[in-house]
Amino acid sequence: MQVYENRREKIYNWMADEGIALVMIEDCEGRRNSALRWFCGQPGDALFFLGMDKKTLLIPWDLNMARLYSQCDTIIPYSQFARKPIKALAGAAEILKIPLGSKIEIPSVTPYPLFLKYVEEISDYDIICREHGVNRELERNRALKDEEEIKIYKKLSAQTSDVINLLIKNVRSGKIKTETDAALFIETEARKRGCEGTGFDTIAAGPGRSFGIHAFPPYTAAAFGAPGLSILDFGLKYMGYTSDVTLTFAAPPLSKPQEKIISLVEKAYSLALSLTEKNASCRGIAQAVDSFFAKSKKVMPHSLGHGIGLEAHEAPAVSSRSDNEWVLEPGMIITIEPGLYDPVHGGCRLENDILITDNGIEILTNSQIVRL
Amino acid sequence: MQVYENRREKIYNWMADEGIALVMIEDCEGRRNSALRWFCGQPGDALFFLGMDKKTLLIPWDLNMARLYSQCDTIIPYSQFARKPIKALAGAAEILKIPLGSKIEIPSVTPYPLFLKYVEEISDYDIICREHGVNRELERNRALKDEEEIKIYKKLSAQTSDVINLLIKNVRSGKIKTETDAALFIETEARKRGCEGTGFDTIAAGPGRSFGIHAFPPYTAAAFGAPGLSILDFGLKYMGYTSDVTLTFAAPPLSKPQEKIISLVEKAYSLALSLTEKNASCRGIAQAVDSFFAKSKKVMPHSLGHGIGLEAHEAPAVSSRSDNEWVLEPGMIITIEPGLYDPVHGGCRLENDILITDNGIEILTNSQIVRL
Repeated sequence: MQVYENRREKIYNWMADEGIALVMIEDCEGRRNSALRWFCGQPGDALFFLGMDKKTLLIPWDLNMARLYSQCDTIIPYSQFARKPIKALAGAAEILKIPLGSKIEIPSVTPYPLFLKYVEEISDYDIICREHGVNRELERNRALKDEEEIKIYKKLSAQTSDVINLLIKNVRSGKIKTETDAALFIETEARKRGCEGTGFDTIAAGPGRSFGIHAFPPYTAAAFGAPGLSILDFGLKYMGYTSDVTLTFAAPPLSKPQEKIISLVEKAYSLALSLTEKNASCRGIAQAVDSFFAKSKKVMPHSLGHGIGLEAHEAPAVSSRSDNEWVLEPGMIITIEPGLYDPVHGGCRLENDILITDNGIEILTNSQIVRL
Repeated sequence: MQVYENRREKIYNWMADEGIALVMIEDCEGRRNSALRWFCGQPGDALFFLGMDKKTLLIPWDLNMARLYSQCDTIIPYSQFARKPIKALAGAAEILKIPLGSKIEIPSVTPYPLFLKYVEEISDYDIICREHGVNRELERNRALKDEEEIKIYKKLSAQTSDVINLLIKNVRSGKIKTETDAALFIETEARKRGCEGTGFDTIAAGPGRSFGIHAFPPYTAAAFGAPGLSILDFGLKYMGYTSDVTLTFAAPPLSKPQEKIISLVEKAYSLALSLTEKNASCRGIAQAVDSFFAKSKKVMPHSLGHGIGLEAHEAPAVSSRSDNEWVLEPGMIITIEPGLYDPVHGGCRLENDILITDNGIEILTNSQIVRL
């Protein structure tokens, strides 16, 4: 498909600039990398290689699955390389006719002890492993969604908003009474709509558990939507891409601290949206929200937001960390999700997905703080 | 709790033997390690440190959660270290009073570029990162389940077998008609029984998709239990531990190749069980099954089995890989899961969980190939 060709072309050009002859992408148990799917459609469990001659090689665990899902020049089952990544890389260099002595870039997450083995066993090549090599280049490219991806997100966001509306209706009517009810309702609706499922474990935390940023376990048989604050954080997964939204359900009677938390989160959300536009510093937006909370002596114990895509957490980071240098660009899709949590009164978080456009922003989803 | 003390004691002794003053365990997004929970009960999102003076330090993302779940000497929120692992390690060395110049072992999965930064930024200590250091020691310790874990598995297995019986009943009665029906039935039953949820994404693959080892997506709205071979692979998660079972539902009319696949998988399963006992070579058992399939010109495209525990895949490996040196010991809990897959006729897999005992084996779960 043309979309994969376009994505690869950018990386081939980058490889030529950097003098890299072969790039290895690994998406296997223990070291996942959804760049595999971004490059060729294969949903997982495979190695993928891009050679300097613009040829690709896929080495999957499951040949049948690869034939069904992937687009690439050559497929060879992993079993032919004893299912060992170093053997697969050596084989790929041979098959793609990479000249001896060339630079080969392996995944940035390659563990130190494994890196030493690569270097020892593949001594005919210059094996490199960099935090900011191909990994950062992919991060940057994937942060900017292409037309195909924006089309997917338009559809996915509409599906997500439909499910949000049904959730609100069913919590109000009492059809959804427990955390499990809420979570399984989402699982069912996702698949009814042709989604692959959910993008991550749904977090449904009733008033007794909403003090946790990420409640554990993600959902239980406990009451949801009961008096106090209940949080529901979920994403649908469609064609590999995930949405990521959070609703808070506030049921009376509410204490003063609970009302205060709701009000602060709502204001922080509006403040963040007002600052979100192309060329804005992601760190700057997050710092503004941190400062706003600080005025009320509150601390948000997580980032303000993050990019979404084939992963629930992608670039750009929307955090106030000192090393966050991301700047918003048209085509980025991020979450904005201010939240406050109190061990006694519970938590409140509001999260929607936002597309950065040339003219401003498009709020893709319709999460809200719902008063019951 | 005494159970955590006992586990730590073994590692403290090992540290003394190896001359390691501080061990770091990291369980955060991107680098998960359930040894965290094994050591202190904290279910995730934290760093954990064991010091030479037998003191522990937990550095969690979420302080509220850590206070609720973890057992350790000191808890300090990750935000105090700017949520950066190198800063956290430097802080831990100070707090636990580790003498300058001592050996500190960091996780074996630490990426090569990050390892270089540790070494550069923490120059007062000897930072080591080994494939077969503390990681292997933990693997070995965790492969041998202690009394507490065996108690958990007895309960978990009974729950799993109950759910299996209900699944068979409901597929037979037609109450479960689709892959989604089967998967969500399991999610619901898991939580009814007080489980945290499922141990991994349930794979429900009807006859049109059972040719995949791990069908993608894991489940869809497609028919389940329709004529041909349907595979259902799931695990319940109880107190952190997962079961892992696979049923095949065979509905008439069945083709001759389908009957052949069923018969071979059943025989391979019996063969494997007959060889499974303490002191047996895991590789030997897997090789016997590979040879058995080879006689019928069939190839199993995955391992025969694996240990289970806080992860769905743990030591020991039960595979025929040349580097597999695991030997069965009493207290190990493994899966045995022979399977064959045909792109036209579909797949068949049978998987149960087995406890190795002093006198033989205990088959903990009751999965089967179900003829509808």
